[in-house]
Amino acid sequence: MRNICLTISYDGTNYNGFQSQPNGNTIQDKLQEAIGRVTGERVETAGSGRTDAGVHARRQTVNFLTTGNVPVHRWPLAVNPWLPADIVVLDAQEMPLTFHAWKSVKRKTYRYSIYCSRYPNVFYRHMHKHHYRQLNVDEMAKALACLVGTHDFTSFCSRKTTKATRTRTIYDAHIEIIRDPESGQPNSTILHIFITGNGFLYNMVRIIVGTLITIGEGRKSSEEMQHILAACDRSEAGPTAVPHGLMLWDVIY
Amino acid sequence: MRNICLTISYDGTNYNGFQSQPNGNTIQDKLQEAIGRVTGERVETAGSGRTDAGVHARRQTVNFLTTGNVPVHRWPLAVNPWLPADIVVLDAQEMPLTFHAWKSVKRKTYRYSIYCSRYPNVFYRHMHKHHYRQLNVDEMAKALACLVGTHDFTSFCSRKTTKATRTRTIYDAHIEIIRDPESGQPNSTILHIFITGNGFLYNMVRIIVGTLITIGEGRKSSEEMQHILAACDRSEAGPTAVPHGLMLWDVIY
Repeated sequence: MRNICLTISYDGTNYNGFQSQPNGNTIQDKLQEAIGRVTGERVETAGSGRTDAGVHARRQTVNFLTTGNVPVHRWPLAVNPWLPADIVVLDAQEMPLTFHAWKSVKRKTYRYSIYCSRYPNVFYRHMHKHHYRQLNVDEMAKALACLVGTHDFTSFCSRKTTKATRTRTIYDAHIEIIRDPESGQPNSTILHIFITGNGFLYNMVRIIVGTLITIGEGRKSSEEMQHILAACDRSEAGPTAVPHGLMLWDVIY
Repeated sequence: MRNICLTISYDGTNYNGFQSQPNGNTIQDKLQEAIGRVTGERVETAGSGRTDAGVHARRQTVNFLTTGNVPVHRWPLAVNPWLPADIVVLDAQEMPLTFHAWKSVKRKTYRYSIYCSRYPNVFYRHMHKHHYRQLNVDEMAKALACLVGTHDFTSFCSRKTTKATRTRTIYDAHIEIIRDPESGQPNSTILHIFITGNGFLYNMVRIIVGTLITIGEGRKSSEEMQHILAACDRSEAGPTAVPHGLMLWDVIY
Protein backbone atom coordinates (compact mmCIF):
# COMPACT_ATOMS: atom_id res chain seq x y z
CA MET A 1 0.00 0.00 0.00
CA ARG A 2 1.36 3.45 -0.95
CA ASN A 3 0.26 6.87 0.22
CA ILE A 4 0.18 9.27 -2.75
CA CYS A 5 -0.10 13.01 -2.20
CA LEU A 6 -1.21 15.14 -5.16
CA THR A 7 -1.13 18.91 -5.53
CA ILE A 8 -4.10 19.97 -7.62
CA SER A 9 -5.46 23.26 -8.94
CA TYR A 10 -9.03 23.97 -9.95
CA ASP A 11 -11.42 26.61 -11.17
CA GLY A 12 -14.37 26.04 -8.82
CA THR A 13 -16.91 27.94 -10.95
CA ASN A 14 -18.74 24.92 -12.29
CA TYR A 15 -18.69 22.70 -9.18
CA ASN A 16 -20.62 22.22 -5.96
CA GLY A 17 -17.39 22.62 -3.98
CA PHE A 18 -14.54 20.27 -3.23
CA GLN A 19 -16.19 17.70 -0.96
CA SER A 20 -18.09 14.70 -2.38
CA GLN A 21 -21.87 15.01 -2.26
CA PRO A 22 -24.76 12.64 -2.95
CA ASN A 23 -25.80 14.78 -5.95
CA GLY A 24 -22.22 14.76 -7.26
CA ASN A 25 -20.46 17.34 -9.43
CA THR A 26 -17.69 18.06 -6.96
CA ILE A 27 -13.93 18.31 -7.42
CA GLN A 28 -13.39 15.26 -5.20
CA ASP A 29 -15.82 13.16 -7.29
CA LYS A 30 -14.05 14.13 -10.54
CA LEU A 31 -10.63 13.43 -9.05
CA GLN A 32 -11.57 10.03 -7.61
CA GLU A 33 -13.15 9.05 -10.92
CA ALA A 34 -9.94 10.04 -12.79
CA ILE A 35 -7.69 8.16 -10.34
CA GLY A 36 -9.99 5.14 -10.68
CA ARG A 37 -9.47 5.21 -14.45
CA VAL A 38 -5.72 4.97 -13.88
CA THR A 39 -5.57 2.35 -11.12
CA GLY A 40 -8.81 0.41 -11.58
CA GLU A 41 -9.34 0.84 -7.83
CA ARG A 42 -12.07 2.80 -6.08
CA VAL A 43 -9.95 5.22 -4.03
CA GLU A 44 -11.04 7.57 -1.28
CA THR A 45 -9.16 10.89 -1.36
CA ALA A 46 -8.71 13.23 1.62
CA GLY A 47 -8.30 16.95 0.93
CA SER A 48 -6.48 19.52 3.08
CA GLY A 49 -9.93 21.01 3.63
CA ARG A 50 -13.19 21.74 1.89
CA THR A 51 -13.74 24.60 -0.49
CA ASP A 52 -17.29 25.87 -1.08
CA ALA A 53 -19.12 25.99 -4.40
CA GLY A 54 -17.49 28.61 -6.64
CA VAL A 55 -14.26 28.77 -4.58
CA HIS A 56 -11.00 28.08 -6.42
CA ALA A 57 -7.69 26.45 -5.56
CA ARG A 58 -4.25 27.42 -6.80
CA ARG A 59 -2.68 24.60 -4.76
CA GLN A 60 -4.93 22.15 -2.94
CA THR A 61 -3.46 18.97 -1.46
CA VAL A 62 -5.09 15.55 -1.46
CA ASN A 63 -3.83 12.12 -0.50
CA PHE A 64 -5.03 8.57 -1.03
CA LEU A 65 -3.90 5.01 -0.48
CA THR A 66 -3.33 2.82 -3.51
CA THR A 67 -1.84 -0.52 -4.47
CA GLY A 68 -1.24 0.86 -7.99
CA ASN A 69 2.36 0.87 -9.17
CA VAL A 70 2.43 4.07 -11.23
CA PRO A 71 5.89 5.67 -10.64
CA VAL A 72 5.34 8.73 -8.47
CA HIS A 73 6.50 11.32 -11.03
CA ARG A 74 4.10 9.82 -13.61
CA TRP A 75 0.93 10.50 -11.56
CA PRO A 76 0.13 13.96 -12.99
CA LEU A 77 0.58 12.75 -16.57
CA ALA A 78 -1.49 9.63 -15.84
CA VAL A 79 -4.42 11.37 -14.13
CA ASN A 80 -4.69 14.65 -16.10
CA PRO A 81 -6.07 13.14 -19.32
CA TRP A 82 -9.09 11.87 -17.32
CA LEU A 83 -9.81 15.21 -15.67
CA PRO A 84 -11.98 18.03 -17.08
CA ALA A 85 -10.11 21.17 -18.26
CA ASP A 86 -10.89 23.08 -15.05
CA ILE A 87 -9.04 20.63 -12.75
CA VAL A 88 -5.33 19.81 -13.08
CA VAL A 89 -2.80 17.75 -11.11
CA LEU A 90 0.42 19.78 -10.75
CA ASP A 91 2.59 17.51 -8.64
CA ALA A 92 2.77 14.13 -6.90
CA GLN A 93 4.79 12.82 -3.98
CA GLU A 94 4.89 9.53 -2.14
CA MET A 95 4.43 10.07 1.61
CA PRO A 96 4.72 7.93 4.76
CA LEU A 97 1.49 6.05 5.54
CA THR A 98 0.95 8.35 8.54
CA PHE A 99 0.58 11.44 6.29
CA HIS A 100 -2.98 12.78 5.98
CA ALA A 101 -3.79 15.81 3.79
CA TRP A 102 -6.12 17.32 6.39
CA LYS A 103 -4.78 16.10 9.75
CA SER A 104 -1.12 16.85 8.92
CA VAL A 105 -1.68 20.48 7.79
CA LYS A 106 0.61 23.03 9.50
CA ARG A 107 -0.71 26.17 7.84
CA LYS A 108 -2.92 27.23 4.98
CA THR A 109 -3.09 30.45 2.99
CA TYR A 110 -6.22 31.81 1.35
CA ARG A 111 -6.40 34.75 -1.04
CA TYR A 112 -9.51 36.83 -1.58
CA SER A 113 -9.53 39.19 -4.58
CA ILE A 114 -11.61 42.33 -5.00
CA TYR A 115 -11.73 44.16 -8.33
CA CYS A 116 -12.38 47.87 -7.75
CA SER A 117 -13.49 49.69 -10.87
CA ARG A 118 -16.50 51.37 -12.37
CA TYR A 119 -17.37 48.37 -14.56
CA PRO A 120 -16.44 44.72 -14.10
CA ASN A 121 -13.53 43.13 -15.96
CA VAL A 122 -15.15 40.32 -17.96
CA PHE A 123 -11.96 38.24 -17.80
CA TYR A 124 -11.93 38.14 -14.00
CA ARG A 125 -15.67 37.77 -13.47
CA HIS A 126 -15.40 34.27 -11.99
CA MET A 127 -12.23 35.05 -9.99
CA HIS A 128 -12.61 38.47 -8.35
CA LYS A 129 -15.48 40.06 -6.50
CA HIS A 130 -16.36 43.26 -8.37
CA HIS A 131 -16.75 46.36 -6.22
CA TYR A 132 -17.63 49.56 -8.06
CA ARG A 133 -16.84 51.97 -5.24
CA GLN A 134 -13.31 52.81 -4.13
CA LEU A 135 -12.33 51.27 -0.80
CA ASN A 136 -10.17 52.78 1.94
CA VAL A 137 -7.43 50.16 1.92
CA ASP A 138 -5.47 51.72 4.82
CA GLU A 139 -8.48 51.28 7.10
CA MET A 140 -9.01 47.73 5.85
CA ALA A 141 -5.35 46.85 6.47
CA LYS A 142 -5.49 48.24 10.03
CA ALA A 143 -8.59 46.18 10.79
CA LEU A 144 -7.10 43.06 9.22
CA ALA A 145 -3.94 43.35 11.38
CA CYS A 146 -6.09 43.00 14.55
CA LEU A 147 -6.84 39.42 13.58
CA VAL A 148 -3.23 38.20 13.63
CA GLY A 149 -2.58 35.96 16.64
CA THR A 150 -4.56 33.31 18.48
CA HIS A 151 -8.22 34.22 18.98
CA ASP A 152 -11.70 32.79 19.29
CA PHE A 153 -13.09 33.49 15.80
CA THR A 154 -16.78 32.80 16.58
CA SER A 155 -17.72 36.25 15.19
CA PHE A 156 -16.24 35.23 11.84
CA CYS A 157 -17.79 31.80 11.62
CA SER A 158 -21.03 30.70 9.98
CA ARG A 159 -23.73 29.77 12.51
CA LYS A 160 -24.00 26.51 10.58
CA THR A 161 -20.65 25.32 11.97
CA THR A 162 -20.51 22.10 13.96
CA LYS A 163 -17.08 22.91 15.46
CA ALA A 164 -17.08 23.27 19.26
CA THR A 165 -13.70 25.05 19.40
CA ARG A 166 -13.45 28.24 17.39
CA THR A 167 -9.94 29.21 18.46
CA ARG A 168 -7.54 29.51 15.56
CA THR A 169 -4.16 31.15 14.99
CA ILE A 170 -3.62 33.63 12.16
CA TYR A 171 0.09 33.90 11.36
CA ASP A 172 -0.08 36.53 8.67
CA ALA A 173 -2.74 38.73 7.06
CA HIS A 174 -2.01 41.45 4.54
CA ILE A 175 -3.37 43.22 1.48
CA GLU A 176 -1.59 43.65 -1.85
CA ILE A 177 -2.78 46.42 -4.13
CA ILE A 178 -2.07 46.09 -7.82
CA ARG A 179 -3.08 48.06 -10.88
CA ASP A 180 -4.83 45.72 -13.26
CA PRO A 181 -2.36 45.25 -16.14
CA GLU A 182 -5.14 44.01 -18.41
CA SER A 183 -7.75 46.62 -17.65
CA GLY A 184 -9.48 48.44 -20.47
CA GLN A 185 -10.73 51.15 -18.10
CA PRO A 186 -8.88 53.77 -16.05
CA ASN A 187 -8.30 53.46 -12.27
CA SER A 188 -8.89 49.74 -11.95
CA THR A 189 -7.35 48.34 -8.81
CA ILE A 190 -7.16 44.76 -7.61
CA LEU A 191 -6.95 44.07 -3.88
CA HIS A 192 -5.56 40.67 -2.98
CA ILE A 193 -6.20 39.85 0.69
CA PHE A 194 -3.92 37.06 1.91
CA ILE A 195 -4.62 35.26 5.21
CA THR A 196 -2.43 32.46 6.60
CA GLY A 197 -3.50 30.42 9.60
CA ASN A 198 -3.34 27.02 11.24
CA GLY A 199 -6.97 26.37 10.34
CA PHE A 200 -10.10 28.16 9.22
CA LEU A 201 -13.71 27.95 10.37
CA TYR A 202 -16.72 27.63 8.07
CA ASN A 203 -16.93 30.79 5.88
CA MET A 204 -14.24 32.45 8.03
CA VAL A 205 -12.28 34.17 5.26
CA ARG A 206 -15.44 35.28 3.46
CA ILE A 207 -16.91 36.81 6.66
CA ILE A 208 -13.60 38.55 7.43
CA VAL A 209 -13.60 39.99 3.89
CA GLY A 210 -17.27 41.02 4.12
CA THR A 211 -16.40 42.88 7.33
CA LEU A 212 -13.32 44.50 5.74
CA ILE A 213 -15.45 45.78 2.85
CA THR A 214 -17.89 47.36 5.32
CA ILE A 215 -14.87 49.09 6.90
CA GLY A 216 -13.35 50.04 3.53
CA GLU A 217 -16.64 51.71 2.60
CA GLY A 218 -16.56 53.71 5.84
CA ARG A 219 -19.71 52.12 7.25
CA LYS A 220 -17.68 50.79 10.18
CA SER A 221 -14.31 52.06 11.50
CA SER A 222 -11.16 49.94 11.71
CA GLU A 223 -11.21 50.33 15.52
CA GLU A 224 -14.44 48.33 15.66
CA MET A 225 -12.64 45.20 14.44
CA GLN A 226 -11.25 44.58 17.95
CA HIS A 227 -14.77 44.72 19.43
CA ILE A 228 -16.24 42.50 16.72
CA LEU A 229 -13.57 39.89 17.44
CA ALA A 230 -14.05 40.10 21.23
CA ALA A 231 -17.85 39.85 20.97
CA CYS A 232 -17.75 36.20 19.77
CA ASP A 233 -21.04 36.89 18.02
CA ARG A 234 -21.58 36.37 14.28
CA SER A 235 -24.12 39.19 14.12
CA GLU A 236 -21.42 41.76 15.01
CA ALA A 237 -19.40 41.04 11.83
CA GLY A 238 -20.21 42.03 8.25
CA PRO A 239 -21.89 39.94 5.55
CA THR A 240 -20.32 36.83 3.99
CA ALA A 241 -18.49 37.92 0.81
CA VAL A 242 -19.39 36.07 -2.41
CA PRO A 243 -17.50 32.77 -2.87
CA HIS A 244 -15.94 33.38 -6.29
CA GLY A 245 -13.33 35.89 -5.01
CA LEU A 246 -11.81 33.21 -2.78
CA MET A 247 -8.89 30.96 -3.65
CA LEU A 248 -7.07 28.35 -1.58
CA TRP A 249 -3.58 29.70 -2.25
CA ASP A 250 -1.26 27.20 -0.56
CA VAL A 251 -1.07 24.43 2.04
CA ILE A 252 2.04 23.87 4.14
CA TYR A 253 2.93 20.64 5.99
CA MET B 1 -29.60 61.61 -35.52
CA ARG B 2 -26.58 61.02 -33.22
CA ASN B 3 -23.49 58.90 -33.80
CA ILE B 4 -22.64 57.00 -30.60
CA CYS B 5 -19.29 55.26 -30.20
CA LEU B 6 -19.00 52.61 -27.50
CA THR B 7 -15.86 50.94 -26.14
CA ILE B 8 -16.70 47.38 -25.22
CA SER B 9 -14.82 44.43 -23.73
CA TYR B 10 -15.73 40.78 -24.09
CA ASP B 11 -14.70 37.26 -23.28
CA GLY B 12 -15.17 35.58 -26.66
CA THR B 13 -15.18 32.01 -25.31
CA ASN B 14 -18.90 31.39 -25.67
CA TYR B 15 -19.54 33.22 -28.95
CA ASN B 16 -19.28 32.61 -32.68
CA GLY B 17 -17.13 35.72 -33.03
CA PHE B 18 -17.96 39.42 -33.16
CA GLN B 19 -19.77 39.70 -36.49
CA SER B 20 -23.52 38.99 -36.79
CA GLN B 21 -24.39 35.63 -38.32
CA PRO B 22 -27.61 33.99 -39.49
CA ASN B 23 -27.29 31.39 -36.69
CA GLY B 24 -26.73 34.14 -34.13
CA ASN B 25 -24.81 33.94 -30.83
CA THR B 26 -22.34 36.67 -31.73
CA ILE B 27 -21.14 39.69 -29.75
CA GLN B 28 -22.72 42.05 -32.29
CA ASP B 29 -26.11 40.33 -31.97
CA LYS B 30 -26.04 40.58 -28.17
CA LEU B 31 -24.97 44.22 -28.28
CA GLN B 32 -27.62 45.26 -30.82
CA GLU B 33 -30.27 43.46 -28.79
CA ALA B 34 -29.18 45.29 -25.61
CA ILE B 35 -29.12 48.70 -27.37
CA GLY B 36 -32.57 47.93 -28.79
CA ARG B 37 -33.86 47.37 -25.25
CA VAL B 38 -32.64 50.85 -24.31
CA THR B 39 -33.77 52.84 -27.36
CA GLY B 40 -36.63 50.77 -28.76
CA GLU B 41 -34.92 51.13 -32.16
CA ARG B 42 -33.39 48.39 -34.28
CA VAL B 43 -29.82 49.69 -34.58
CA GLU B 44 -27.03 48.45 -36.82
CA THR B 45 -23.61 48.60 -35.13
CA ALA B 46 -20.26 48.75 -36.94
CA GLY B 47 -17.20 47.30 -35.19
CA SER B 48 -13.57 48.33 -35.67
CA GLY B 49 -13.12 44.85 -37.14
CA ARG B 50 -14.23 41.27 -36.72
CA THR B 51 -12.88 38.92 -34.11
CA ASP B 52 -13.13 35.16 -34.68
CA ALA B 53 -14.93 32.67 -32.47
CA GLY B 54 -13.06 32.35 -29.14
CA VAL B 55 -11.09 35.59 -29.63
CA HIS B 56 -11.41 38.22 -26.89
CA ALA B 57 -11.43 42.01 -26.76
CA ARG B 58 -10.03 44.23 -24.04
CA ARG B 59 -11.13 47.34 -25.95
CA GLN B 60 -13.22 46.94 -29.09
CA THR B 61 -14.90 49.98 -30.63
CA VAL B 62 -18.36 50.05 -32.19
CA ASN B 63 -20.55 52.88 -33.44
CA PHE B 64 -24.20 53.26 -34.39
CA LEU B 65 -26.68 55.93 -35.34
CA THR B 66 -29.61 56.57 -33.04
CA THR B 67 -32.40 59.07 -32.47
CA GLY B 68 -32.44 58.04 -28.78
CA ASN B 69 -31.79 60.86 -26.32
CA VAL B 70 -29.84 58.97 -23.63
CA PRO B 71 -27.13 61.39 -22.34
CA VAL B 72 -23.79 60.18 -23.66
CA HIS B 73 -22.21 59.36 -20.26
CA ARG B 74 -25.29 57.26 -19.35
CA TRP B 75 -24.88 54.80 -22.23
CA PRO B 76 -22.71 52.23 -20.39
CA LEU B 77 -25.06 52.18 -17.39
CA ALA B 78 -28.11 51.94 -19.66
CA VAL B 79 -26.83 49.12 -21.88
CA ASN B 80 -24.87 46.94 -19.40
CA PRO B 81 -27.90 45.56 -17.52
CA TRP B 82 -29.14 44.06 -20.82
CA LEU B 83 -25.82 42.40 -21.69
CA PRO B 84 -24.64 38.96 -20.56
CA ALA B 85 -21.83 38.89 -17.95
CA ASP B 86 -19.13 38.22 -20.58
CA ILE B 87 -19.74 41.48 -22.50
CA VAL B 88 -19.43 44.95 -20.95
CA VAL B 89 -19.61 48.53 -22.21
CA LEU B 90 -16.71 50.53 -20.71
CA ASP B 91 -17.15 53.94 -22.28
CA ALA B 92 -19.31 56.02 -24.64
CA GLN B 93 -18.64 59.10 -26.75
CA GLU B 94 -20.70 61.11 -29.21
CA MET B 95 -18.89 61.45 -32.52
CA PRO B 96 -19.38 63.44 -35.74
CA LEU B 97 -21.70 61.69 -38.21
CA THR B 98 -18.67 61.02 -40.45
CA PHE B 99 -17.04 58.76 -37.80
CA HIS B 100 -17.11 55.05 -38.61
CA ALA B 101 -15.62 52.45 -36.21
CA TRP B 102 -14.01 50.48 -39.04
CA LYS B 103 -13.30 53.05 -41.77
CA SER B 104 -11.84 55.63 -39.37
CA VAL B 105 -9.34 53.29 -37.64
CA LYS B 106 -5.74 54.60 -37.58
CA ARG B 107 -4.11 51.66 -35.82
CA LYS B 108 -5.04 48.54 -33.90
CA THR B 109 -3.12 46.49 -31.37
CA TYR B 110 -3.58 42.77 -30.82
CA ARG B 111 -2.08 40.72 -28.02
CA TYR B 112 -1.46 36.98 -28.26
CA SER B 113 -0.65 35.15 -25.01
CA ILE B 114 1.26 31.89 -24.65
CA TYR B 115 1.45 30.13 -21.28
CA CYS B 116 4.67 28.09 -21.08
CA SER B 117 4.64 25.53 -18.30
CA ARG B 118 4.55 21.81 -17.76
CA TYR B 119 0.81 21.78 -16.98
CA PRO B 120 -1.86 24.28 -17.96
CA ASN B 121 -3.06 27.00 -15.58
CA VAL B 122 -6.80 26.31 -15.21
CA PHE B 123 -7.53 29.99 -14.62
CA TYR B 124 -6.09 31.05 -17.97
CA ARG B 125 -7.35 28.14 -20.03
CA HIS B 126 -9.69 30.29 -22.14
CA MET B 127 -7.24 33.20 -22.42
CA HIS B 128 -3.78 31.83 -23.15
CA LYS B 129 -2.52 29.15 -25.47
CA HIS B 130 -0.79 26.51 -23.34
CA HIS B 131 2.62 25.39 -24.57
CA TYR B 132 4.37 22.77 -22.46
CA ARG B 133 7.83 23.14 -23.98
CA GLN B 134 10.12 26.11 -23.34
CA LEU B 135 10.42 28.50 -26.27
CA ASN B 136 13.50 30.41 -27.43
CA VAL B 137 12.08 33.91 -26.99
CA ASP B 138 15.20 35.67 -28.36
CA GLU B 139 14.79 33.87 -31.67
CA MET B 140 11.07 34.64 -31.71
CA ALA B 141 11.69 38.33 -31.04
CA LYS B 142 14.27 38.52 -33.84
CA ALA B 143 11.84 36.95 -36.29
CA LEU B 144 8.99 39.19 -35.14
CA ALA B 145 11.09 42.33 -35.70
CA CYS B 146 11.39 41.48 -39.42
CA LEU B 147 7.68 42.14 -39.83
CA VAL B 148 7.77 45.78 -38.74
CA GLY B 149 7.25 48.10 -41.72
CA THR B 150 5.08 48.02 -44.82
CA HIS B 151 4.92 44.62 -46.50
CA ASP B 152 2.73 42.32 -48.53
CA PHE B 153 1.51 39.90 -45.83
CA THR B 154 0.06 37.23 -48.16
CA SER B 155 2.20 34.57 -46.42
CA PHE B 156 0.43 35.40 -43.15
CA CYS B 157 -3.10 35.50 -44.49
CA SER B 158 -5.71 32.76 -44.63
CA ARG B 159 -6.34 31.48 -48.15
CA LYS B 160 -10.01 32.16 -47.43
CA THR B 161 -9.43 35.92 -47.63
CA THR B 162 -11.37 37.96 -50.19
CA LYS B 163 -9.01 40.95 -49.93
CA ALA B 164 -7.17 41.82 -53.16
CA THR B 165 -4.54 43.99 -51.46
CA ARG B 166 -2.51 42.29 -48.76
CA THR B 167 -0.13 45.17 -48.03
CA ARG B 168 -0.30 46.35 -44.44
CA THR B 169 1.96 48.41 -42.16
CA ILE B 170 3.12 47.05 -38.81
CA TYR B 171 4.20 49.93 -36.55
CA ASP B 172 5.32 47.92 -33.56
CA ALA B 173 5.75 44.27 -32.64
CA HIS B 174 7.31 43.03 -29.41
CA ILE B 175 7.20 40.30 -26.81
CA GLU B 176 6.77 40.78 -23.07
CA ILE B 177 7.87 37.94 -20.82
CA ILE B 178 6.34 37.72 -17.37
CA ARG B 179 6.50 35.20 -14.58
CA ASP B 180 2.97 34.07 -13.79
CA PRO B 181 2.20 35.63 -10.39
CA GLU B 182 -0.67 33.18 -9.85
CA SER B 183 1.09 30.00 -10.86
CA GLY B 184 0.97 26.98 -8.61
CA GLN B 185 3.88 25.36 -10.47
CA PRO B 186 7.54 26.37 -10.85
CA ASN B 187 8.94 28.00 -14.01
CA SER B 188 5.68 29.19 -15.50
CA THR B 189 6.22 31.94 -18.02
CA ILE B 190 3.69 33.98 -19.93
CA LEU B 191 4.65 35.44 -23.31
CA HIS B 192 2.52 38.35 -24.45
CA ILE B 193 3.09 39.11 -28.13
CA PHE B 194 1.88 42.62 -29.03
CA ILE B 195 1.43 43.66 -32.67
CA THR B 196 0.26 47.12 -33.74
CA GLY B 197 -0.63 47.89 -37.34
CA ASN B 198 -2.86 49.92 -39.64
CA GLY B 199 -4.89 46.84 -40.46
CA PHE B 200 -4.78 43.06 -40.26
CA LEU B 201 -5.63 40.35 -42.78
CA TYR B 202 -7.77 37.31 -42.03
CA ASN B 203 -6.00 35.18 -39.34
CA MET B 204 -2.86 37.33 -39.73
CA VAL B 205 -1.87 37.54 -36.06
CA ARG B 206 -2.63 33.87 -35.45
CA ILE B 207 -0.49 32.78 -38.45
CA ILE B 208 2.35 35.07 -37.34
CA VAL B 209 2.19 33.52 -33.86
CA GLY B 210 2.02 29.98 -35.25
CA THR B 211 5.17 30.76 -37.23
CA LEU B 212 6.90 32.30 -34.18
CA ILE B 213 6.16 29.15 -32.17
CA THR B 214 7.76 27.01 -34.89
CA ILE B 215 10.82 29.27 -34.62
CA GLY B 216 10.76 29.27 -30.79
CA GLU B 217 10.80 25.48 -30.86
CA GLY B 218 13.85 25.53 -33.15
CA ARG B 219 12.08 23.86 -36.05
CA LYS B 220 12.74 26.97 -38.16
CA SER B 221 15.41 29.65 -37.64
CA SER B 222 14.65 33.34 -37.14
CA GLU B 223 16.50 34.13 -40.38
CA GLU B 224 13.82 32.26 -42.34
CA MET B 225 11.20 34.85 -41.38
CA GLN B 226 12.51 37.22 -44.06
CA HIS B 227 12.11 34.54 -46.73
CA ILE B 228 8.66 33.52 -45.53
CA LEU B 229 7.52 37.14 -45.78
CA ALA B 230 9.06 37.61 -49.23
CA ALA B 231 7.56 34.39 -50.59
CA CYS B 232 3.98 35.75 -50.45
CA ASP B 233 2.85 32.15 -50.06
CA ARG B 234 0.73 30.95 -47.12
CA SER B 235 2.30 27.49 -47.25
CA GLU B 236 5.72 28.93 -46.28
CA ALA B 237 4.46 30.15 -42.88
CA GLY B 238 3.63 28.08 -39.80
CA PRO B 239 0.21 26.83 -38.65
CA THR B 240 -2.59 29.12 -37.48
CA ALA B 241 -2.37 29.40 -33.65
CA VAL B 242 -5.53 28.60 -31.68
CA PRO B 243 -7.98 31.53 -31.38
CA HIS B 244 -8.33 31.71 -27.59
CA GLY B 245 -4.84 33.20 -27.01
CA LEU B 246 -5.78 36.26 -29.06
CA MET B 247 -7.16 39.54 -27.73
CA LEU B 248 -8.01 42.77 -29.50
CA TRP B 249 -6.03 45.02 -27.18
CA ASP B 250 -6.77 48.54 -28.38
CA VAL B 251 -8.05 50.59 -31.31
CA ILE B 252 -6.72 54.07 -32.06
CA TYR B 253 -8.49 56.73 -34.19
